[in-house]
Amino acid sequence: MVILYAMNDQKVINRTLQLARRALGHTSPNPVVGAVLVKRGRVIAEAYHRAPGTPHAEALVLQEAGQRAEGATLYVSLEPCCHTRKRTPPCTKAIIASGVKKVVVAMEDPNPRVSGRGFAELRKAGIEVVSGVLEERAKRLNEAYIKYITTGEPFVTLKVAMTLDGKIALPGGESKWITGEKARRVVHRMRAASDAILTAIGTVNADNPRLTARLKGAKDPLRVVIDPRLETPAGFHVLDTPLSTVMVTDEAMRKKAERLRKEGLEFLFFRNKLDLRWLMKELGRMEITSVMIEGGASLSSHAFHDGIVDKVVFFIAPKIICGRDSLPAIGGRACKRLEDAYRLRDLSIRRVGEDLMVEGYVVK
Amino acid sequence: MVILYAMNDQKVINRTLQLARRALGHTSPNPVVGAVLVKRGRVIAEAYHRAPGTPHAEALVLQEAGQRAEGATLYVSLEPCCHTRKRTPPCTKAIIASGVKKVVVAMEDPNPRVSGRGFAELRKAGIEVVSGVLEERAKRLNEAYIKYITTGEPFVTLKVAMTLDGKIALPGGESKWITGEKARRVVHRMRAASDAILTAIGTVNADNPRLTARLKGAKDPLRVVIDPRLETPAGFHVLDTPLSTVMVTDEAMRKKAERLRKEGLEFLFFRNKLDLRWLMKELGRMEITSVMIEGGASLSSHAFHDGIVDKVVFFIAPKIICGRDSLPAIGGRACKRLEDAYRLRDLSIRRVGEDLMVEGYVVK
Repeated sequence: MVILYAMNDQKVINRTLQLARRALGHTSPNPVVGAVLVKRGRVIAEAYHRAPGTPHAEALVLQEAGQRAEGATLYVSLEPCCHTRKRTPPCTKAIIASGVKKVVVAMEDPNPRVSGRGFAELRKAGIEVVSGVLEERAKRLNEAYIKYITTGEPFVTLKVAMTLDGKIALPGGESKWITGEKARRVVHRMRAASDAILTAIGTVNADNPRLTARLKGAKDPLRVVIDPRLETPAGFHVLDTPLSTVMVTDEAMRKKAERLRKEGLEFLFFRNKLDLRWLMKELGRMEITSVMIEGGASLSSHAFHDGIVDKVVFFIAPKIICGRDSLPAIGGRACKRLEDAYRLRDLSIRRVGEDLMVEGYVVK
Repeated sequence: MVILYAMNDQKVINRTLQLARRALGHTSPNPVVGAVLVKRGRVIAEAYHRAPGTPHAEALVLQEAGQRAEGATLYVSLEPCCHTRKRTPPCTKAIIASGVKKVVVAMEDPNPRVSGRGFAELRKAGIEVVSGVLEERAKRLNEAYIKYITTGEPFVTLKVAMTLDGKIALPGGESKWITGEKARRVVHRMRAASDAILTAIGTVNADNPRLTARLKGAKDPLRVVIDPRLETPAGFHVLDTPLSTVMVTDEAMRKKAERLRKEGLEFLFFRNKLDLRWLMKELGRMEITSVMIEGGASLSSHAFHDGIVDKVVFFIAPKIICGRDSLPAIGGRACKRLEDAYRLRDLSIRRVGEDLMVEGYVVK
């Protein structure tokens, strides 16, 4: 019986995660959150937080259920908030007022302004609280939010699309397309879920990428282009209007930048050598919670050596193109010794059409 | 009932494949074959072919069962032989004489001297024959034998051990170890199952490899070293005695080769440019049915461009080492266009310790 009970909790929490997932890419800088209200073994309301400034998932289900919430169990993918320094009222108050008798949660809110205090408030009001159901999956779903809220810096994912022999382009630059259509669709979904895409002038010149999420209903990410001497050719897609592009450029380019400035185009200036850690801090200040790197072999290497990569996603095509001079997945400077290699943990692999998708987290 | 029956056939054929697998690396140039004799739903004998010149699996089970074979069903992983141009008597005769009433087989023998004729002989004698049970798996198990018996050339597997970013060594050459212990143990098993290992002087100089199968009871493969100018340093492991090494060298080296010749060391001479297709034909003539390539970035590229690779096995370590000058998994000359890439089919992926193992067959 006990086991059955535990399985039910997992099943409903799983549903809250499914609901939360729908909002990926729309709630930043907030987390994605799903909630389900269950009474006498039946779901009486479900909802998810849709966008910053709109009601939280908990508020939505309680509102939908009205008086029926009394005696029900509330399942939420994240600890309900208790703070008031924001646009929406604290959820704990609403939960206590609703008459809910039990709250089951996937994970504690890592936000230092909440972290456990939401639970404490609920318990003080006599509500039973269970936490940690499907916690790992919940953490993965909000990995960007967790990093951002605890460090002020965005969660950085490095994306690579390569052949099995580790090439991203032929010596002449040809790279369209290494991977298949399904993999490219997954990339569009990843873009839609990212606050920003980071690339560099080399890739812009080689591929003239749009870096948009070409999916129905998807929000395009901010484009961040490292272009030290402002050489992005006029008319290239990263300058398409309406503009949401930040050019990262050398301070010496300030004057040229002034001339180029047009509606929506922003600049970040660095002095001498670009430190990507500095850039991530700057993007964090702009409330960018997640960044996907889609650059070339040099930018990827730079990102590793500057220590900003949290996660890698490699799409591997079942193809071999050979070539000492083909572009390697990651170029730049090599690690000095094998023991200095950047190590990945929690590897997961799946097939995406004809390609493989390998994800892993960088051991820090 | 019919379905149950079919499932039983699969179960027993699966057992014949398990038995056959035990002999991998010991039966060349013969296939690996397992046999199980079943009577009234019970296994009364099982066996596998152990080495060329010794009895076939069918003969072994019939011998073990003796008179009890009468009325039994014989399961074999490969069509029983009917030809007499070899050291052992044809199995069809023994099966007919034994009184077996039914024969269930995984696959037809691709050997043009058998291919279907074994079945015909059995049927003519009034024995029921079923073929094609777990056929794909049986074919994969004997993929080397199938290629060899139908073309006279060995089945070629290219092995690569690389980081996730597609490197096999640091710019300075450091490559020990990219992959973990379990992956290296799988490589030893692969070596044990290969008739020969092909490498080149670059790898010999860089790593001084043994290229042996360091596993209990394993047979070491023949070492085939491409060394155009006979530069392998004396005392290097590929020259360890007892010798089973073939040096592939330029004809101009004939005299030097004569001086180097010692017990067991053989030479193959090419003129001007080495054509790996020629080399595979030569190895086929030497009854080498399977070759594993364990060379560097150049040899691997050469093997692809000469069209000799049948299968690839990539061990991928969850590490990133970066570096424009790190050694790529496959170097040499690149394909001209992406559409000329060598394509892989029937990809399979598994975890081997901390590493990934990706296998695929080259589309010809």
